[in-house]
Amino acid sequence: MTGDLYITRVRPMGEAATSLTVRGGRIAACGEVASPGVEVIDGGDAILIPGLVEAHTHLDKTLLGMGWYRNEVGPRLIDKIENERAEKKRLGIDPARQSARQAILSVSHGSTAIRSHVDVDTEIGLSGIEGVLRTSETYRDIVDIEIVAFPQSGMLIRPGTVELMEEALRLGAHVVGGLDPSAIDRDPKGHLDVIFRLAERFGVPVDIHLHEPAELGAFSMELIIERTRALSMQGKVTISHAFCLGMADQDYVASLIDSLAEARVHILTTAPASRPVPPVKRLVEAGVVVAAGSDGVRDTWGPYGNADMLERAVLVGLRNNFRRDDEVALALDTCTMGGARLMGLEDYGLAPGCKADLVLLDGETLAEAVVNRAPRRIVIKGGRVVARNGQALIEVA
Amino acid sequence: MTGDLYITRVRPMGEAATSLTVRGGRIAACGEVASPGVEVIDGGDAILIPGLVEAHTHLDKTLLGMGWYRNEVGPRLIDKIENERAEKKRLGIDPARQSARQAILSVSHGSTAIRSHVDVDTEIGLSGIEGVLRTSETYRDIVDIEIVAFPQSGMLIRPGTVELMEEALRLGAHVVGGLDPSAIDRDPKGHLDVIFRLAERFGVPVDIHLHEPAELGAFSMELIIERTRALSMQGKVTISHAFCLGMADQDYVASLIDSLAEARVHILTTAPASRPVPPVKRLVEAGVVVAAGSDGVRDTWGPYGNADMLERAVLVGLRNNFRRDDEVALALDTCTMGGARLMGLEDYGLAPGCKADLVLLDGETLAEAVVNRAPRRIVIKGGRVVARNGQALIEVA
Ligand SMILES: [Zn+2]
Ligand SMILES: [Zn+2]
Repeated sequence: MTGDLYITRVRPMGEAATSLTVRGGRIAACGEVASPGVEVIDGGDAILIPGLVEAHTHLDKTLLGMGWYRNEVGPRLIDKIENERAEKKRLGIDPARQSARQAILSVSHGSTAIRSHVDVDTEIGLSGIEGVLRTSETYRDIVDIEIVAFPQSGMLIRPGTVELMEEALRLGAHVVGGLDPSAIDRDPKGHLDVIFRLAERFGVPVDIHLHEPAELGAFSMELIIERTRALSMQGKVTISHAFCLGMADQDYVASLIDSLAEARVHILTTAPASRPVPPVKRLVEAGVVVAAGSDGVRDTWGPYGNADMLERAVLVGLRNNFRRDDEVALALDTCTMGGARLMGLEDYGLAPGCKADLVLLDGETLAEAVVNRAPRRIVIKGGRVVARNGQALIEVA
Repeated sequence: MTGDLYITRVRPMGEAATSLTVRGGRIAACGEVASPGVEVIDGGDAILIPGLVEAHTHLDKTLLGMGWYRNEVGPRLIDKIENERAEKKRLGIDPARQSARQAILSVSHGSTAIRSHVDVDTEIGLSGIEGVLRTSETYRDIVDIEIVAFPQSGMLIRPGTVELMEEALRLGAHVVGGLDPSAIDRDPKGHLDVIFRLAERFGVPVDIHLHEPAELGAFSMELIIERTRALSMQGKVTISHAFCLGMADQDYVASLIDSLAEARVHILTTAPASRPVPPVKRLVEAGVVVAAGSDGVRDTWGPYGNADMLERAVLVGLRNNFRRDDEVALALDTCTMGGARLMGLEDYGLAPGCKADLVLLDGETLAEAVVNRAPRRIVIKGGRVVARNGQALIEVA
């Protein structure tokens, strides 16, 4: 039956080898004998981890497969935003095609769930949302794609954008996005009130890009936490980037972390090397869910990124100065369990009853597999093999 | 004749395709016709760059090939130093064997020159120096290895170390190393006077590990610059890490950069994500030589690193927020030209007359080859192919 598998000789999280029975797309048991007739996969002593979770990317605007983009963009945020709007037309960045390319690349690297912010603005309208919705439908059996309606060019400063955000949610976007309420929209109260009102009306979570630095970002963070409490949205709100948590004032950071934990607001980090970053270990120790993402993968903003969440775990480790094996495991956790909790994925993990979203990694220990960005021997989605040896078993439709 | 080659269809630095004639281990010309009887290599439109330069690593203490080392080391610098001294004995980290392993890995990734700091202390004595000297001799035809006598455990605080440093230089170490004159040796004047005296006596360059933060590191930097001037050692002194140049006081940083440029003191960065770093673009614009290195590769200090200098260029780019193509080229430059200038390599580059130390990279553009950490199709050392498709053509002796 589809979704039935028997996987021999795998080491869950690098522990002792066992077998894994998958029934109806879910993990049934460890260490059973194989049922007759079931497809058997030789795990070859690989390390078994749950599917990687890409909890923050921009599927609609990658340039993957479009030839090299020569980046000569200016240094300011607004340069990048305006350049991108112009290049979308000039280059013909098709959101459906491009999101499919990146989604398949993600699957080849072992991601089984993706949260993608998707641009909504008065120039492209809803074409990004429609394109990524199509990809999410087409590839629904190989990867879960969650869509955040994202006002990349600003919301209140560009009249008509709020109505497009509403329409995006009506079309099926899963999450309301936001962006630098002060720095971009120049009206933190106004920006956040609109976003939270949309979230309430459509019954969806919130995920806000917050690049604002230090005390300015911290003020925005306070406003977000206040609204999370007031609307009883605990566990439904994410702050992406949250550079302000990397600020110098450690007492203020500590009080923000306490408030985040209390309001169950999640933090998403890409662990950028050139910006202040949220302190992963302190957040996790305080009980805050911390997830990780690639952010833009080879787009007009920058040339880096390959949608590999095991590489992202290494970058989280390097940025947070994680050297010990238990720390490397924590870095990986942001790319697995943390992402699953942020996205609210149900039945995620390696326990019986969990969905069989799985990755088999070559390696001696879990930490070694992470730092080596170990070959992905097999990727399984809902009990079905979707990639082998770094190659997805599907083509762009 | 050995060192004669004719390479077709290569694109120097990603520019237009040409052919390259190598004679007697040196670049003779571009665009000539092949001489009869000469070995022909089809470049297949690959990008041609000069050999990568690993300008700061620790060949003597990598754990490559020794099985996974479970890192449970404490957080302080002294924890790592003491743990390493103990583990060297317990694990039997053989400097000759381990340096050969890492050197060959470096060659497989396209490095044709390496500067390695090598521990000198009162417990292991000169065994590290002797081991790496052996490796440098054994593999002299495939990679240039320069050895820095490095007092990892401190120098003045451990009586007998200065005499060992002297002996290391007598044995053939090429450079005098130093380490955090205040933070470790507790005597900045004393530490630096000894090091510069050794440099003067043996007529060798200086390369000092300087992790000291902010104003403390800046003070040490001033003392180093003063001695460089006083002894007319302009162009012969390197400060490795130089985290103080990442400090907040921008006026002070600017004056330090001016002094470094004037005294021709070089800066080596590993572009760590979790520490303040020297600003590469500002330094280069001021005329300071900036090179890059892997630092420790999978050792008791930490699990990261793979001796790939193209990956290091990506990390330099990420840490310095380099996004434009010209900025990515600058990141690569720290791993090629900058390293060559720091090490004082003669006849380095792609011009006629330069040594034929070359790497052929797959890729559409130079920036793409960097961000992809492009496959190294061929690595050539002195006109001889030493690696193909990521595999060195030699084995550990
Ligand atoms: Zn983003
Ligand atoms: Zn070092």
